[in-house]
Amino acid sequence: MSQTISFQSLHRFTSNAFLNVGMSEADAATGADVLATTDAWGIFTHGTKSLAGYLRRLQADGLRAKGRPRVVREGGGWASVDGDSSLGMVASVFAMKTAIAKAREQGIAYVGVHNSCHFGAAGYYAWLAAREGLIGISMANDIPSVAAPGSRGSITGSNPLAYAVPAGNRRPILLDISTATVAGGKVYAARARGEPIPANWIIDGNGRPTTDPSGFPQVGALLPMAGHKGYGLSLLIETLSGILSGAAVTWGIRSWAHDDASLPTLHGAAFLAIDPECICGRDEFTRKVEGLIDEIHGSPRADGVERLIVPGEPEWERYDRALSEGIALPTDVLENLQKAAEMTGLKLETLFI
Amino acid sequence: MSQTISFQSLHRFTSNAFLNVGMSEADAATGADVLATTDAWGIFTHGTKSLAGYLRRLQADGLRAKGRPRVVREGGGWASVDGDSSLGMVASVFAMKTAIAKAREQGIAYVGVHNSCHFGAAGYYAWLAAREGLIGISMANDIPSVAAPGSRGSITGSNPLAYAVPAGNRRPILLDISTATVAGGKVYAARARGEPIPANWIIDGNGRPTTDPSGFPQVGALLPMAGHKGYGLSLLIETLSGILSGAAVTWGIRSWAHDDASLPTLHGAAFLAIDPECICGRDEFTRKVEGLIDEIHGSPRADGVERLIVPGEPEWERYDRALSEGIALPTDVLENLQKAAEMTGLKLETLFI
Repeated sequence: MSQTISFQSLHRFTSNAFLNVGMSEADAATGADVLATTDAWGIFTHGTKSLAGYLRRLQADGLRAKGRPRVVREGGGWASVDGDSSLGMVASVFAMKTAIAKAREQGIAYVGVHNSCHFGAAGYYAWLAAREGLIGISMANDIPSVAAPGSRGSITGSNPLAYAVPAGNRRPILLDISTATVAGGKVYAARARGEPIPANWIIDGNGRPTTDPSGFPQVGALLPMAGHKGYGLSLLIETLSGILSGAAVTWGIRSWAHDDASLPTLHGAAFLAIDPECICGRDEFTRKVEGLIDEIHGSPRADGVERLIVPGEPEWERYDRALSEGIALPTDVLENLQKAAEMTGLKLETLFI
Repeated sequence: MSQTISFQSLHRFTSNAFLNVGMSEADAATGADVLATTDAWGIFTHGTKSLAGYLRRLQADGLRAKGRPRVVREGGGWASVDGDSSLGMVASVFAMKTAIAKAREQGIAYVGVHNSCHFGAAGYYAWLAAREGLIGISMANDIPSVAAPGSRGSITGSNPLAYAVPAGNRRPILLDISTATVAGGKVYAARARGEPIPANWIIDGNGRPTTDPSGFPQVGALLPMAGHKGYGLSLLIETLSGILSGAAVTWGIRSWAHDDASLPTLHGAAFLAIDPECICGRDEFTRKVEGLIDEIHGSPRADGVERLIVPGEPEWERYDRALSEGIALPTDVLENLQKAAEMTGLKLETLFI
């Protein structure tokens, strides 16, 4: 079951919801653009499905509708941003724009954010940089949900990492991953269907890998992607987005979805921008990125494989279709938008016009 | 079979070998320190085992014994280094030192290297930064040996990535990984033993995952770690170490082990340094990193697991043992050191004093 909504309607509805809880027009538009774009990419787990959850915190003041992210300390190639408990998307867009401006001067910049919240899809912020011709890298920490090798429970968050590389006239190379093997949602789906899962997805309550999803997430934890490699990368993300940024780390973070909505969640995030124009010239850079993409597209394929994909291509194809034909929103997203409508006095029907 | 050699003897032997092919004392010591430290960490695949291979190129002039890496362009937070076809370790140490100096001023720095060669263990250069109190990140490209999802053959190199985070009085957190599921050496070992391998290690000549290692590497390719995630990360590494640096990419790189030794291999590498002292203060940073390490060590463990490991701990324990008790060099390393001795007029026996 799904229903097709135009990108513009979804954007406007989301923006109006944010306006109705007291956000400024500019901040509401920023939040709406992140969430609607994420849905347009087809990443429905991180788009407007979460709107009602963010609104709950905005109404309870754990997220501050009038929060103003600001640079509290800075140097040539870096800045430390206090998110002021504003919507995670507002703090994150501010931070990446700060990184972009600094990278244009210094070649590269790091901006860490503390006092933020769940920022949605990491890829959006990386794309902000790539739209401006820069390489963007974004990451964040979150409440622990992922095991370390040998642990009985969760050690780190699913700590997402995204990057975007500008590719001239083509859409940027864009990767947005969690450092867990899979998202918890895939485990829930298997549990709902009563199906076993691969042995590298979760551990049970005794810390042993299991193919039985029925106990998750009451006991057990997700497994890191590629074992110790994903665990190691999640600790780098924790360091850059939690420690260096001055945010909370691991168990010091609150769940944006489940914990007391009147309290800040204290998430951290990190944004890097690198300007090829400074370092090797934009034309040279673009020509070589295009060459790499062509090389991949032209490489021999396994039997039955129609094409080789450069990261982001499926998302960009869905995005183009979303903008021209609308987005087929899944039922669970629509149900959450109904909640958002009720919370903010909007009518869900406005989505369909 | 293995033989125990003191760290100092291994370092001196390696340095003498480099001296005997015309390198300066300083460069020979640099190369020896990288390779002997790698062996001390127990990463024998990337230590002095490769010495004879590097000497072959140095003697044939594909690697230039008197090569002088230099900054050819730079800005506040970045530099572009021409490796001058010097030993990869010499160019890489120069580049990371450049990144450290710039990061101390700007908070973060990127240094790309072109006209380099295989740089051994990426972790050494990350550690250089951590020894100075900075976060270090290092990466490089290499000849293609790893598939993309759906490809019939190799698309990217095994593109290594390492980072090191300073941890006060403790040894740095240190992760050094390839973006392939496993190193080719593990496939060779299974083939030699006539054993099947897990289905996520390699593809066969038709691009299909296989548990049969017997055809590798004549046909097939390694698989990326965690599927599209490892593939995506390898493209970011290719971008930063190959494209942005002005180096060769993918099939434009020559094999340092197998291709004509009189030609440069044209590898690229990238080094990032981030200075916590600038951004949040070294004491605050260190206290939180130590807290994270303590938290991991104190977390509940699965049945039968003796301890939870922070990345780098096994390497540092081997390192400490190596410096106090010597390094138990495997037979294949000793055989390669015998070759190195013959190539440079050294006596292998000098290793044992």
